[in-house]
Amino acid sequence: MSNKQLLDAAKARYQAFCDEGLSLDMTRGKPAPAQLDLSNELLTCLNTSGFKAADGTDCRNYGVLDGLPEARAFFAQYLEVAPNEVIVGGNASLNLMYDAMTRAMLFGVPGATSPWCRQGKIKWLCPAPGYDRHFNVCADMGIEMITIEMTDQGPDMDEVKRLVAADASIKGIWCVPRYSNPTGITYSDDVVDALAQMPTAAPDFRIFWDNAYNVHHLTDNPKPLRNIMDACKAAGHADRVYIFGSTSKITFAGAGIALLAASSNNLAEAKRHISMQTIGSDKLNQLRHLKFFGDMDGLRAVMRKHATILKPKFDMVLQVFRDELASTDLASWSEPEGGYFISLDTRPGLAGKVVAMAATAGVKLTGAGATYPHGKDPQNRNIRISPSLPSVEEIRKAMAVVSTCIKIASWESEA
Amino acid sequence: MSNKQLLDAAKARYQAFCDEGLSLDMTRGKPAPAQLDLSNELLTCLNTSGFKAADGTDCRNYGVLDGLPEARAFFAQYLEVAPNEVIVGGNASLNLMYDAMTRAMLFGVPGATSPWCRQGKIKWLCPAPGYDRHFNVCADMGIEMITIEMTDQGPDMDEVKRLVAADASIKGIWCVPRYSNPTGITYSDDVVDALAQMPTAAPDFRIFWDNAYNVHHLTDNPKPLRNIMDACKAAGHADRVYIFGSTSKITFAGAGIALLAASSNNLAEAKRHISMQTIGSDKLNQLRHLKFFGDMDGLRAVMRKHATILKPKFDMVLQVFRDELASTDLASWSEPEGGYFISLDTRPGLAGKVVAMAATAGVKLTGAGATYPHGKDPQNRNIRISPSLPSVEEIRKAMAVVSTCIKIASWESEA
Repeated sequence: MSNKQLLDAAKARYQAFCDEGLSLDMTRGKPAPAQLDLSNELLTCLNTSGFKAADGTDCRNYGVLDGLPEARAFFAQYLEVAPNEVIVGGNASLNLMYDAMTRAMLFGVPGATSPWCRQGKIKWLCPAPGYDRHFNVCADMGIEMITIEMTDQGPDMDEVKRLVAADASIKGIWCVPRYSNPTGITYSDDVVDALAQMPTAAPDFRIFWDNAYNVHHLTDNPKPLRNIMDACKAAGHADRVYIFGSTSKITFAGAGIALLAASSNNLAEAKRHISMQTIGSDKLNQLRHLKFFGDMDGLRAVMRKHATILKPKFDMVLQVFRDELASTDLASWSEPEGGYFISLDTRPGLAGKVVAMAATAGVKLTGAGATYPHGKDPQNRNIRISPSLPSVEEIRKAMAVVSTCIKIASWESEA
Repeated sequence: MSNKQLLDAAKARYQAFCDEGLSLDMTRGKPAPAQLDLSNELLTCLNTSGFKAADGTDCRNYGVLDGLPEARAFFAQYLEVAPNEVIVGGNASLNLMYDAMTRAMLFGVPGATSPWCRQGKIKWLCPAPGYDRHFNVCADMGIEMITIEMTDQGPDMDEVKRLVAADASIKGIWCVPRYSNPTGITYSDDVVDALAQMPTAAPDFRIFWDNAYNVHHLTDNPKPLRNIMDACKAAGHADRVYIFGSTSKITFAGAGIALLAASSNNLAEAKRHISMQTIGSDKLNQLRHLKFFGDMDGLRAVMRKHATILKPKFDMVLQVFRDELASTDLASWSEPEGGYFISLDTRPGLAGKVVAMAATAGVKLTGAGATYPHGKDPQNRNIRISPSLPSVEEIRKAMAVVSTCIKIASWESEA
């Protein structure tokens, strides 16, 4: 076929998709109902004689600021830190990140000479493509974002090291170290070590380490991730890292358990303020989770069931892209071994058009640009694919739509 | 008996209490286990087919920033505002208050020319005796607290009006309008109207209206409280008030539902930031509460059961005080018709000593001074009595200890 014929055929196919009246939502990394069903025991595992903690604490009542001792012990294992380095929070790790940033702005952090809001312009390193909600936190606080290129080993550390050594107004960096959102890569040991060891001009530099996909493997032999807390301690920078995690994509996305881990020095400072903010998080939900998991093996067993549901969805995205696009030079994509996303790159300048065309055909994708600070992808090429919520068949259809849109947008731009 | 003989008798009685090895905790307004038992249905009322909201929303999953529509409708009734004026939060209204203050500091509020942290010294009106955790929020933020005398009608409004008219750096006031913590009074209509109507030098003045004891009556004919939202709207000051509430002392103190109500203008501004902080609160716990209450009559029925448990405890405090102290001029106390506290005033200068003596005898009370900004009661006379947690018999004993301590401290100071 001629190029003209190929384009006409793609347009006809696109019109046929539009005529189908599709309505598929792939905007966010929402678990599917079948995944939520895996944790339904949470709904019923407490009863009228089962509301006490191991030490006799009535979990219905006030108290226990930093979480039940058994919850701190369990989630310390999960995050690979010491129990006294963990605070068990509410239902959203984003809330813990936002509040950590708020406290730094209003009060500073250990090592700071003053609150960040009193230090003039504050800047933050944003490896991108990255997570839009991270960038939103910076935007909300008026923190200037500096985009750092993501490599397949993690952030471009040459650039990171150069910047933080020279500029004391750079106060931190966002990191999703395992199955990075959206590229799916896991940070190499060298990157973790470099982050822990690098000299920073700011004495109050912080790594916001969002280990959201800590155990969210799609393979049986996951690549290990170096322990950032150990690396920071070994480098003499124990206060450098705040680690965040949650069970949002292990149990219930909207009713899970969020976690903050940090050095005892950082936690003491955080708790000085958190103790003014709340009397404690929902301990009954902590009990529910402990009963449901039993132990770390129990948690890992749940994750294997998630993988059984998720893997065919990821595979279908990749299969359609291979079938439709592998023989072309129109796009490239990640093939992640875990997490919630596939990162798709069109030719420069086309992501916005592809997302808009897909939406017109009834396939809602994460907005083009969302994976970059201020929602502006400088090359307008990155699209985040979220395969978790739709069915495998819906994904087949949705990715065919996206592939067709890519072809049309690419070929039209050649004309 | 001579004064010397009275003092010696009191000392002997005090020593006998000490020898008993008592261990009673009356430091906080914690519900008793029997009160928590009233809501045990919350532990079991959800099941594997009952996790959806009326509109089909899967409450296990992400989403719904401001609360389920039915939860907003229900709690709007509870707070006597419109459903679109309510946000349903997590398990702690203190958290909503702290975050509201944080947002005002970092971003300002509608009507503000700039964030409060950029306006130099900020001041806040603190009616006292009042709630220590309110004052702690101000202290944490570095906000200067101005103590306002509490009357039996509410804060001394002549003083409030004089101050806010003259000083634009006064940004707000803490209010517990019903069964005020700890004096137990309910604000008069005149006080509510004056708060709503008064001219303020600050264009961004806010009333933090903590209606924690909205339905927490000990009588069948509670004194009405004028609707602050209506009063503010009528005065052309719809944006002046943030209303807070919770079910912490209706259902489970540590696993209830917290509420923020404000004008649509205020809520839009708040949600602009909250949407960066979280994807939404625990909707399953909202469902639990809606199922448990059924409707407002159901909630009121729960509150009558609380009163049945609490009233004898309050009565016992008052009975011991009457028996021990009514014939003296050593102390005065409130006789509240609801809420969680009785406010006790010793002679000036003695509260600290009484609290310390009671502690030595095994009766832990809220620290003397806690009811004033910075924990400093200028007259060192106010003691907050929290009768909810101990049994009636324990209260009889504890109040006998306190009464004895008051006698000794008073008579020794006369010597």
